[in-house]
Amino acid sequence: MSETRYDFRSDNVGGAAPEILEALVTAGDGTTAPYGDDDHTRAMNAGFSRLFERPVQAFPLASGTGSNSVALASLANRYGAIYCHGTSHINVYECGAPEMFTGAKLVALGGRDFKLQAESLEEALSLAGRGNPTRVQPFALNLTQPTDFGTLYRPAEIAALCDVAHRHGLRVHMDGARFANAIAALDCAPAELTWRAGVDVLSFGATKNGAINAEAVVVFDPGLAKEIPFLMKRGGQVLSKARFVSAQLARYVADDRWLERARQANENAGWLARELAALPGVSMVAPVEINMIFVRLPEVAVTALERGPFHFYRLGRDQRFVCRHDQEPEGMEALVDCVRKALAAAPASRASS
Amino acid sequence: MSETRYDFRSDNVGGAAPEILEALVTAGDGTTAPYGDDDHTRAMNAGFSRLFERPVQAFPLASGTGSNSVALASLANRYGAIYCHGTSHINVYECGAPEMFTGAKLVALGGRDFKLQAESLEEALSLAGRGNPTRVQPFALNLTQPTDFGTLYRPAEIAALCDVAHRHGLRVHMDGARFANAIAALDCAPAELTWRAGVDVLSFGATKNGAINAEAVVVFDPGLAKEIPFLMKRGGQVLSKARFVSAQLARYVADDRWLERARQANENAGWLARELAALPGVSMVAPVEINMIFVRLPEVAVTALERGPFHFYRLGRDQRFVCRHDQEPEGMEALVDCVRKALAAAPASRASS
Amino acid sequence: MSETRYDFRSDNVGGAAPEILEALVTAGDGTTAPYGDDDHTRAMNAGFSRLFERPVQAFPLASGTGSNSVALASLANRYGAIYCHGTSHINVYECGAPEMFTGAKLVALGGRDFKLQAESLEEALSLAGRGNPTRVQPFALNLTQPTDFGTLYRPAEIAALCDVAHRHGLRVHMDGARFANAIAALDCAPAELTWRAGVDVLSFGATKNGAINAEAVVVFDPGLAKEIPFLMKRGGQVLSKARFVSAQLARYVADDRWLERARQANENAGWLARELAALPGVSMVAPVEINMIFVRLPEVAVTALERGPFHFYRLGRDQRFVCRHDQEPEGMEALVDCVRKALAAAPASRASS
Amino acid sequence: MSETRYDFRSDNVGGAAPEILEALVTAGDGTTAPYGDDDHTRAMNAGFSRLFERPVQAFPLASGTGSNSVALASLANRYGAIYCHGTSHINVYECGAPEMFTGAKLVALGGRDFKLQAESLEEALSLAGRGNPTRVQPFALNLTQPTDFGTLYRPAEIAALCDVAHRHGLRVHMDGARFANAIAALDCAPAELTWRAGVDVLSFGATKNGAINAEAVVVFDPGLAKEIPFLMKRGGQVLSKARFVSAQLARYVADDRWLERARQANENAGWLARELAALPGVSMVAPVEINMIFVRLPEVAVTALERGPFHFYRLGRDQRFVCRHDQEPEGMEALVDCVRKALAAAPASRASS
Repeated sequence: MSETRYDFRSDNVGGAAPEILEALVTAGDGTTAPYGDDDHTRAMNAGFSRLFERPVQAFPLASGTGSNSVALASLANRYGAIYCHGTSHINVYECGAPEMFTGAKLVALGGRDFKLQAESLEEALSLAGRGNPTRVQPFALNLTQPTDFGTLYRPAEIAALCDVAHRHGLRVHMDGARFANAIAALDCAPAELTWRAGVDVLSFGATKNGAINAEAVVVFDPGLAKEIPFLMKRGGQVLSKARFVSAQLARYVADDRWLERARQANENAGWLARELAALPGVSMVAPVEINMIFVRLPEVAVTALERGPFHFYRLGRDQRFVCRHDQEPEGMEALVDCVRKALAAAPASRASS
Repeated sequence: MSETRYDFRSDNVGGAAPEILEALVTAGDGTTAPYGDDDHTRAMNAGFSRLFERPVQAFPLASGTGSNSVALASLANRYGAIYCHGTSHINVYECGAPEMFTGAKLVALGGRDFKLQAESLEEALSLAGRGNPTRVQPFALNLTQPTDFGTLYRPAEIAALCDVAHRHGLRVHMDGARFANAIAALDCAPAELTWRAGVDVLSFGATKNGAINAEAVVVFDPGLAKEIPFLMKRGGQVLSKARFVSAQLARYVADDRWLERARQANENAGWLARELAALPGVSMVAPVEINMIFVRLPEVAVTALERGPFHFYRLGRDQRFVCRHDQEPEGMEALVDCVRKALAAAPASRASS
Repeated sequence: MSETRYDFRSDNVGGAAPEILEALVTAGDGTTAPYGDDDHTRAMNAGFSRLFERPVQAFPLASGTGSNSVALASLANRYGAIYCHGTSHINVYECGAPEMFTGAKLVALGGRDFKLQAESLEEALSLAGRGNPTRVQPFALNLTQPTDFGTLYRPAEIAALCDVAHRHGLRVHMDGARFANAIAALDCAPAELTWRAGVDVLSFGATKNGAINAEAVVVFDPGLAKEIPFLMKRGGQVLSKARFVSAQLARYVADDRWLERARQANENAGWLARELAALPGVSMVAPVEINMIFVRLPEVAVTALERGPFHFYRLGRDQRFVCRHDQEPEGMEALVDCVRKALAAAPASRASS
Repeated sequence: MSETRYDFRSDNVGGAAPEILEALVTAGDGTTAPYGDDDHTRAMNAGFSRLFERPVQAFPLASGTGSNSVALASLANRYGAIYCHGTSHINVYECGAPEMFTGAKLVALGGRDFKLQAESLEEALSLAGRGNPTRVQPFALNLTQPTDFGTLYRPAEIAALCDVAHRHGLRVHMDGARFANAIAALDCAPAELTWRAGVDVLSFGATKNGAINAEAVVVFDPGLAKEIPFLMKRGGQVLSKARFVSAQLARYVADDRWLERARQANENAGWLARELAALPGVSMVAPVEINMIFVRLPEVAVTALERGPFHFYRLGRDQRFVCRHDQEPEGMEALVDCVRKALAAAPASRASS
């Protein structure tokens, strides 16, 4: 039964892009050294270096939480503070993994559109008690790009935040679980969103955009790379047959299909958001900039959707719909239709929403 | 060039068994819930329950170190001690991951053939200071089966060790990274080597026997299962697309091919060990019971092998050769031949070995 | 020179109350078992049981941060969250010690007068994701009584907060670094402020009210006491000659002098606050309920005080003055006088403050 | 009743030396800054710098376990190994505190007379896998001087061990809980036993030799000192009224009484050991070099002692007697007498011992 459902839960509910799957399958030919000392991993590194227009070091992992935690650990001291937005993935949805890997405290700030602002970061850091042994010492800034609510930092915003961070002695980690969607939406070079703006280490996610449990820690500051193999091993993040992740990532960045998929997913969500926003009683929770829609539908519509052949998530009184690149057009139309009909049948519900 | 080499480094240098790869590929069809709430994971659980002849709960992961660390964390208190053999994988080759995940101290004991003995465990635990707040409190016993040197515990040995452990209030974790090789060599039921002998939680490895980064924590004590999802998430061990691991494992235990592969690998190593042991100046470091050979060859032979088309590991003055199920017969013969010729050409070296 | 200064920095800048010092001195007679297995510690326990009108278990320590951290660790799971006010001592001034001892995440809430409110705690806990493995799991509520800004929870407020906490499966820790000042100000029984209102474990501070590095973890739930000796030892909080702390605490609670001292300190601060508040351009940052004054003086007054024979702390643009029970009356008068004169001499400064 | 017992349990069962107690009492005069920013702490630093014949930085704490843990943490990386003797205090009697403070693994080595040997350390470090990410990385050597069994490293032995350690990139921590007894027994300069031999950081204990919960971390490498205030705070080791510890330590090293007390304690133990060793059926477990005796008495003698007015510890089948500087001579004679009589009355027991 579940196969007939239209699935808007997340972008990790789908399978693999054909060329990625093929790269995975052929990576099994022959024998090779384990733990990342192999040609596929070298090809992945070359690919990332091309993509970012400079030599980088990339480390393959299977888990996004692992990737964030290792990246942050590479920046950490042992009595430190990581500054992040209160709604960031590392703060809310990783069950304390960043804390366990780093030993640090996450300091959660607010900020409009689920984004940090340079001014409030500046103020928070100026009150952080640098050098005072009763206070945890700031060492890292986490930027989630796109945010967990699908909003986007512009390159200039990232640069301004990195500038504040660097002036206060922090280094910058970007959580790019949906990095492809950000690049596709902003139409800028990966370098522009990362190291040119001041990002020191990036969690590059591919799983949500057509890969199979394939993530990378991409290090722009060579000094950070040395400790990462130890931090990965200590965190159970080193893969015995790492080449099966590396091969996916090498293929992923070998051409522009990753961006095409992301662009299509973004466009799908844009269409869906416009249609929903035009209906009476519907309010958007966040601007729709990538493939995620956060919306508050009248309850009668939510109930109708839950009866119909749709998968999606409730977040308190709000709802989340995520579009994949291969989202079925008829599913999107059916969803809008279902909401429209539910609202038409129960106009009073608008007031109660 | 490396393709022409005969590779005896490890059993994780190879690819995937065909039926496992196929299961992985087809797992991508349709959409499904992420993080292990899917039909593949349910099929995996059913498969493990069949295999172990009782209901079990199994959790899919990508890393053996992660699997050991999570399993041990499910047993841990916060000021505890894990008893293990000094040569165990968790003690030597996991860069402190078990300690980070558990907060516990590893207490390393000795023991012949790289195995713990019930008597010495009994003695160690009786001196451990149960209830004394200056002492870490024993809570877990780790058994590596097979050991890192390829030796095997018999079911009666496991039962005796588990009995000591349980009487002292410890629970038992088995590190089964090469569980298939143990079952194949001992020709006993998986239940007999585990819960019937007293094992509480098992790290079931499939990666070294034909799977792609596919491991499972298998819980025999239902009380332990409740915390594991949290411990996994906190350790960055939850996979976004977990079904791609679950599908492999479900397929892995669906028939006897996993045991056939393991049996073949064991036999390959047995043949190779007998051939090498018959050569002059060669001494075995450990009895060869599975697919791993630890041997001390005369240096002249080691040097010859390193020149020839062979991959293997040096361990100080010893050497390790691991056989895969698909080890090339001509490679094995070539290896013996190379050693034989080297020894014949330099007879004096035998004395110096 | 510093001896001639009037010191308003903190209540830990002073010495020991005479009877406490005497108890410490006489505790050295004879020999006794180390690590808390002694008659002084037993007397301390009896004293606390009398004070709290029920059997309690108390553990002597030297550090308030250690006391808070151990108390919280006694409540903790391993993937948990401690709810606290954003301005709480454990969140701001303990350099991550509670996190290190517990492995937990501190979740900081807001709240008027630096206090948590039952409604906002209820809301936060209802959104905390109980049972969701991506979320840290709430297990403890921290109440700082008095707060770090000298405000007080009424017994009914504590009871309401504990009720919310308990309904959501949390236990409650009270940080009572200035517990004496709270009891003196509220004029209620210690039981009423703690276990009768639902507090499970209390950090009872005596150092700031006449003792010498003497603190106690007081456990109302006997089930929690069993683990504390291990958690203390693991945290380096067990004292070799614990009796020298226990003897102080036993004496401390043996009569009412601790409350008289606290009452006097509170009254001193009350007088000083009233005098300052009456001056032009002076605004209070927090209501003055105990012996701490948080105030914003015109900058000209702050500068004048810093020239004069006064010690106090700046907190950004605000100032903190803490009164001891033995605060010199002439020092308090001199302080008011200094501020008054500075304001009179520079009336324009009021506007700019 | 317990007052009439002769107490050989430990050197922390006694009180304070008169001049130390006086220093503590007078430290309460006037007010001073908390947390170690005071004249007493400065005097303590000057005193230690004189004692060690070079500028050092010393940090006051109340707990020996805390001191060891902070000192080791100042040396630690985050995936490291601390090498120590299997019988060392940090490995056996601190309930995992060094592990919690450092995140490191303790690697326990053997060695005659409870001491590490340079050769076996060299061998262990050469096999430690420097640079291999599957292995924890050695960063610290712990020397316990005297050892927990009362044996002593000579300066040349320390120098040889430090030399090995430094060549392998480790730094050296000395646990000097009974440092006074070592200096008194070896009759050498404190500098000679520490930094001149290569020790980087010392846990200097005074509690067991006449102080009240007064310990210091003494840092010889100025680069290490910077992090210690943070590591102390995070470990709950910063004392609110630190001056009461600093004042004791400043007084402790102000003249030679600390050494006289230690010398007397050592001599007391020497006399007692000689007397006991001369009795039939008595065997020494360790050479008696300071104030601790580890001995195996015939069981009949142990039973007799336990009936008589004596306090001491059993360690499995062995016994420990510790002498204080103010050990009552009649108690020592009574102890020898009691053993002698028990052996005379039951000569057969000798064989069964």
